[in-house]
Order: sequence, then structure tokens, then C-alpha cells
Amino acid sequence: MSRVLIKDIADHVEQEITLQGWVHRIRELGGINFVILRDRSGQAQLVYEGSVDVTLETVVSVSGRVQKNVKAPAGFELLVAETRVLATAAPDLPVPVNQDPKNFGIEAILDNRLISLRNPKIRSIFTLQSEICRYFAEYLHNQDFTEIKTSKLIGSGTEGGTGLFEVEYFDTKVYLAQSPQFYKQAMVSSGMERVFEVGAAYRAEKHETPRHLNEYISLDVEMGFIEDEHDLMDLESGILSYMFARIQEEHSDILELWDARVPSPEDVARAPRIAHEEAKKIVSQRLGRRVFEINPEAERVICEWAMEEYGVDLVYINEFPRKKRPFYTYPKGLKTMSFDLIFRGLEITTGGRRINEYPMLLETLPRFGLTEEGLGGYTDIFKYGCPPHGGFAIGLERITQKILGLSNVKEASLFPRDRKRIKP
Amino acid sequence: MSRVLIKDIADHVEQEITLQGWVHRIRELGGINFVILRDRSGQAQLVYEGSVDVTLETVVSVSGRVQKNVKAPAGFELLVAETRVLATAAPDLPVPVNQDPKNFGIEAILDNRLISLRNPKIRSIFTLQSEICRYFAEYLHNQDFTEIKTSKLIGSGTEGGTGLFEVEYFDTKVYLAQSPQFYKQAMVSSGMERVFEVGAAYRAEKHETPRHLNEYISLDVEMGFIEDEHDLMDLESGILSYMFARIQEEHSDILELWDARVPSPEDVARAPRIAHEEAKKIVSQRLGRRVFEINPEAERVICEWAMEEYGVDLVYINEFPRKKRPFYTYPKGLKTMSFDLIFRGLEITTGGRRINEYPMLLETLPRFGLTEEGLGGYTDIFKYGCPPHGGFAIGLERITQKILGLSNVKEASLFPRDRKRIKP
Repeated sequence: MSRVLIKDIADHVEQEITLQGWVHRIRELGGINFVILRDRSGQAQLVYEGSVDVTLETVVSVSGRVQKNVKAPAGFELLVAETRVLATAAPDLPVPVNQDPKNFGIEAILDNRLISLRNPKIRSIFTLQSEICRYFAEYLHNQDFTEIKTSKLIGSGTEGGTGLFEVEYFDTKVYLAQSPQFYKQAMVSSGMERVFEVGAAYRAEKHETPRHLNEYISLDVEMGFIEDEHDLMDLESGILSYMFARIQEEHSDILELWDARVPSPEDVARAPRIAHEEAKKIVSQRLGRRVFEINPEAERVICEWAMEEYGVDLVYINEFPRKKRPFYTYPKGLKTMSFDLIFRGLEITTGGRRINEYPMLLETLPRFGLTEEGLGGYTDIFKYGCPPHGGFAIGLERITQKILGLSNVKEASLFPRDRKRIKP
Repeated sequence: MSRVLIKDIADHVEQEITLQGWVHRIRELGGINFVILRDRSGQAQLVYEGSVDVTLETVVSVSGRVQKNVKAPAGFELLVAETRVLATAAPDLPVPVNQDPKNFGIEAILDNRLISLRNPKIRSIFTLQSEICRYFAEYLHNQDFTEIKTSKLIGSGTEGGTGLFEVEYFDTKVYLAQSPQFYKQAMVSSGMERVFEVGAAYRAEKHETPRHLNEYISLDVEMGFIEDEHDLMDLESGILSYMFARIQEEHSDILELWDARVPSPEDVARAPRIAHEEAKKIVSQRLGRRVFEINPEAERVICEWAMEEYGVDLVYINEFPRKKRPFYTYPKGLKTMSFDLIFRGLEITTGGRRINEYPMLLETLPRFGLTEEGLGGYTDIFKYGCPPHGGFAIGLERITQKILGLSNVKEASLFPRDRKRIKP
């Protein structure tokens, strides 16, 4: 008998069907016993007239008749006629699967990742993350962007050698890319004009904070023929509006599970754009002392301000001073055509227009202590005609974290890597 | 004046418009001069009444009136009133952009990647590749698969330590993952049941062949609750039918440029499935000598056979012997529930059902000289109830190569990595 998914059980009332999944919960009442079965689509109650001889998490194929029962989850249950064990689970589960994950700490969740992901609430983080990637790509395809896949093994860093992981590569050494910056600019210049990439990025930094990962997924965008950073903020607002609206439409169940909400398209459209200098003033005023940079505390304060003034917890900060941005950022006087996006107190995006004119780039390098040779071919992109362009990157784990209200970004990484964690 | 894309020029006859792009070709006839302008959407003829003072590949913004001209590409041209240079190109182009790429060799193409990608025919390889990824994901989302992003930094290899690149990771060493095998199995077992990943895979092998890369993109699939490898071959045929049909519908222009065709859904449905033993017999017969494995020569021969017998250049080979497959492959007597897919003489997929029962896995390990401890947590997936499952991977660069008929897989990698090539 071919398998029926649990979500479709109501279509089979009074029919004999087969369900397959994991034993999620067992309730033994003596004569009649109940098992909650879990598959990818949901959970169903199984009724056993007699004893149930399975352990939690055992994988079974059960056949029987579907009957209505107002007391069962979703109003239906399966009266089991036959149970076939597909794979027995050992009885010593390292973490319970069928409890609210707030009952155990993040270390227990991550140390036992292979089992904790079975918890439906924890797994839902990654169902949502898959959809974030999907909506990101859908929106950009509709805007004539091309997806690229670039090498993560680079001969040298465009931003100097600090923070790079070294790889033994045959008889030489290469590094894991910190971002696809170099390559996405090259692809704009190649004539693709509009590109995006969903790929891994690596930072060899000894952070131990709830906002950093040493390996993360970067949703990268680069676009040619722009005027300034406002074109990029417009694009990002378009992406976020679409992404949030689709999440609301298709995954309100996950939002409910986490007691979360996403900004509406109207909310996103109201997100203020304030200059870095102005942002510092606002934060200084609210904190009652002068701040000199937008640090994590300031990111929280500026989002509180945006919520009060604009009713949205998204703020663009633009016009960062030149010395706070990488050499390739396009200047606007002493400022730059750059921006960050802060969402619910956390920076989720950095971006800006890049220098595209070769003479301007050559003039800029020495000011940052760089040489053309030291950049390993980077300047070739500009020597032969590169249009005005810019781009940005959204941290996938960070936006996932902030949508669901997770306390640590590591919870939004399937198999997070930090200074100490290299498995599973 | 806002920019018009070249593909839309016919909508603006006798109007003043602005085009932006690269100077692709210049033809000076004295009084009247012509420039072919290239943007992401196509090429257009610009008419200058007077001299043209730009170099090839310079990026310009040109304004003027659109007029009909049956002799111009697409039947229209722009009579230029104003030219604004956005970025000047140096005159010493390392490779010509406006010539047929068959005029220069693969080394010149790859050494000058940043410029050779401007060639529209070369760039079209990566437009197609972007679409292959898109159709792959679309089909699988429609079949209820979830996209995952797994770590590429692993503590040890599931298939032993050979062929792994070593990474200095703070005070320890990790390795670049050869495949997401471990993780995609973990995600099936976690209850997601059906997952896919589009990500980098690394092989530290000293190949120098037209079919190998040291870093490539793997289109990975894993599915729970299967019976045997036929479920997987059915799924792959579904993916390929969809992918090829969408390419035919939307990108026949790229196929024409490369004088290429894709198999129809009927072709894919006819792809034979032959056992490894039978495949060796067929190849032996055709070569007139006994062969002992399906090597690259045999892959070509078996595809010739399939073309003659079934009219399709796709062949599934299944039931590989146990000693030819990794330890985790599900046994079927002395054979295994495994398969390869050969497309136009090249293996593009390896897959199979995996061992899901913990006792069977424990019994298998010593036969392959492995221990549970040595696998670094791999067996935890199975200890707590893992459904029958299997999966496969399609090499993105290989399928791109074979669709377009490229002679070397490196041509289908934006920034290929081999023993000697680590830039750009």
C-alpha cells in the first residue's frame, strides 16, 4: 500500500492506509495505547488495541483504518492493524525530541545536533531558512539577475591577509574567501550586469558572541549601472518586502510556533535612511553620552528609535566615513556611498557603491597602504571598462535569527562552526 | 533619461532614448561610423555622424533617436546625439572580446578569465548554468524537498583521509568536505525526509584531465522512505526531464549559439537501466576485448550503444559490486543498490540507497577496515532510528559541459581550480 502523508489523513476517513514516520510520543493507558507518529508533514495519533512495543524515535510503517476522533490532533486517528519497524531507535536519546526546546540550553542543542534537529520546532528554523533562500532567488531572477557560483579558494585576500583561514593546496597555500566581493564585481564587469550568489563565507576571527559564526552563508548581490547607494537600498527593500510577504503567506505556522512576525511591505517601505553622523547623534542623545561608532548597543538603540518614530524595526544607515569602509568603497566627499541595514537591533547587511573608475582606484590604493600588485589581479576588472556598480550581502543566519527571535545566531546554522565547534 | 535595454529598442522607434553598455565593435567608414554596443540583453548598432573617439570595451551611456534600418542587427539602430563615457577601457585587451572563442585556446580563455567572460558566447555558458541551478531547485521544491546549507569544514572524512584539503582552523586542523553526504543523510534522518543542496565540493586529487576539477559545485539530493535505487533513478529522470524541457523553452538561443540540443522528456524516459555486469559485457563486445571496469573509454562506448539501441545518450548503470562502492552503500547480495548516470560519454551522477539500519552498519564497518569511533559521529544518525533512504549528486560543471558540448569541464567553471590554477 503506498504511503499517505499525515497532512492528507483527512482525505482517507474510513479507508485503510499506510503512514510512515518516527514514534514521537507514547501514551500507555493499559488496554488501549496511543502513539503520536511524526512525518515531514505533521503528527497523527495511532491507536493500538493492545501493547505497543517500540521505543521513541523508532521509524515505523503502520497500516490501519482512519477514523474521526474529535479528541485526536487534527480530528482524526489511525486504528492500527499492522506495524512494521523500519529502524529501531536506541532507548538512550541524548536529548528529548518531543519537548519544548526552551527546556534545554543551546550547548545541549548543538552538541546533539543530529537528534535535536528532530524536534519539530527546531527543524522549522531550517524549513524557513530554505524558503528565505528560495524567495531571495525568485525575486532576483524576476529582476533579471543571474546566479553565480564562485571559487571559495583564493590566492590572497582583497582586504589584506587578516582573518583568513589558510588551506594547504598541493604545493602552495590558498585561503578561504571572506566574501565573493572580487568575483561578483568581475561578473558585473563581464557584462552580466546583475548577479547574485548564495554561498559560504569564512572569517577566521576569534569571536565568541551570539552574533558571529566563523562559517556562514552570505546572500550576495551586485548590480551594474547604478547611481549611488540608494539604488541598492531600493533593491534590498524590494527583496525584503517580497521575502517577508511570502513567508507570511506560506509559513504563518512557523511564525506562530516561534511567536514571531515579519514586517509588512508597508513597514519595509517606511524604513528610514539616516546618515552615519545623524545616527550617532540620535544614539548619543538617547544614551545620554556621546558615541563614536555604531556598535551592537547602538544598533539596538537605533532600532528602538526607528520603532518609535517610524513604527518599523528596520533602519538603513548610510554615508559612512571613508576610514570606516574598505578601500573599494565609492567616495562622496569625506563620506562614502555605503550603507548598513539594521534589523531588530542587529546589522544584517553591509553594502555600497564600489569604485569603478580605474584611475580613481589607482589613486586610492596608496592611501590604504595597498598596491596594485598586492591585490593579485583585482584591478584588472577596472582596467578594461567597468560600469558604475555596487552591491550588498545579507547574512542568512542573521536574518533567520531575527525573523524568529532566536537568541543566538548559531541556532540558525545547521552545523555551526566556531572556535571550538567543528562537529558534527 | 532612464536607461532602455537593447532588447526593448524596437518599442521605441522614432523616440529619444538612452542605452548603456560596452563598446563591442567599431567600424569607421569616414563620414559615418558605426559602433556595436553590448548590454546584458543584446547588441545594437549606434550610428555616429562624425568620428568615434572610444576604445573597445569602454563603458558608455549614449542618447539618441531610434530608427529603422533593415541592415542593422534586429532591424533598428540608434542615431547618436550624445555619448557619455562611464569608464574608459585600456587599449591593450589581453584577449579579443568580439571574436568567436574557438579562435583562442582554453589556456588563453582561463588565464584571462575576467576579460574572456565578456565574450557573449562564453558568458552564455554561465547564464545556462544559473538556469540549471534554478530548474533543479524548482523541481525539487515542487516535490516537497527542502534546501539545506551544510558546513564545508569537517573534522574528518567519512571516506577516510585521502583526497582531502587540510585547513588551519585556529589551534587545530579541519578538512574541506568532499561531499555533503554525511549531512544530507543526517537531515533525512532528522525528519526533513527530502533535502537538496547546491554547494561546493573539494577533491585534493592530482588529476590533469578534461573531466576533473579540484573544486566543483555538487547538486546533491537525498530522500527518505525509498525501496531501492530505482526510486532514485526515477527522481533523477524527473529532474532532468524538467530541466531539459525548461532549457529548450527558455534558452533555445544559447543552444543555437553552441549548436547544441537537449534530450526531450521522451528521450529521458527511454534511458536504459543496465546492471554493471551487463554494461561490462556490452562494452567488451563492442571493443572486442574484455573490460573489467567502466572507465572513461567504456563510458563513451556504453553511450554509443544506448544511442543505437534506445536513441538516447543517457544510460543508468546500477548494481555495482560491493567492493566498487563506499561502505555505506546498501547491499543487494554481492551487489549494491547503487547507480551511475552516464550522459554523452561522461559520468555525471553517482548515487544509491544507503545503509540505514544501525546493526547492519556496525557489521559492515570492519569489512572496510573502519571503526565507529573513526567515523567521528557519523553513526549517531543511525543509532536513533533512520528511515530507508538514498540519494545522488549531479556535477554542475559536468552537466553544463555535456549540454553545450564543451571539450573541457574547466570551461564550465567560472573560476576553475586545478593543481596549477588558483587565480583569478
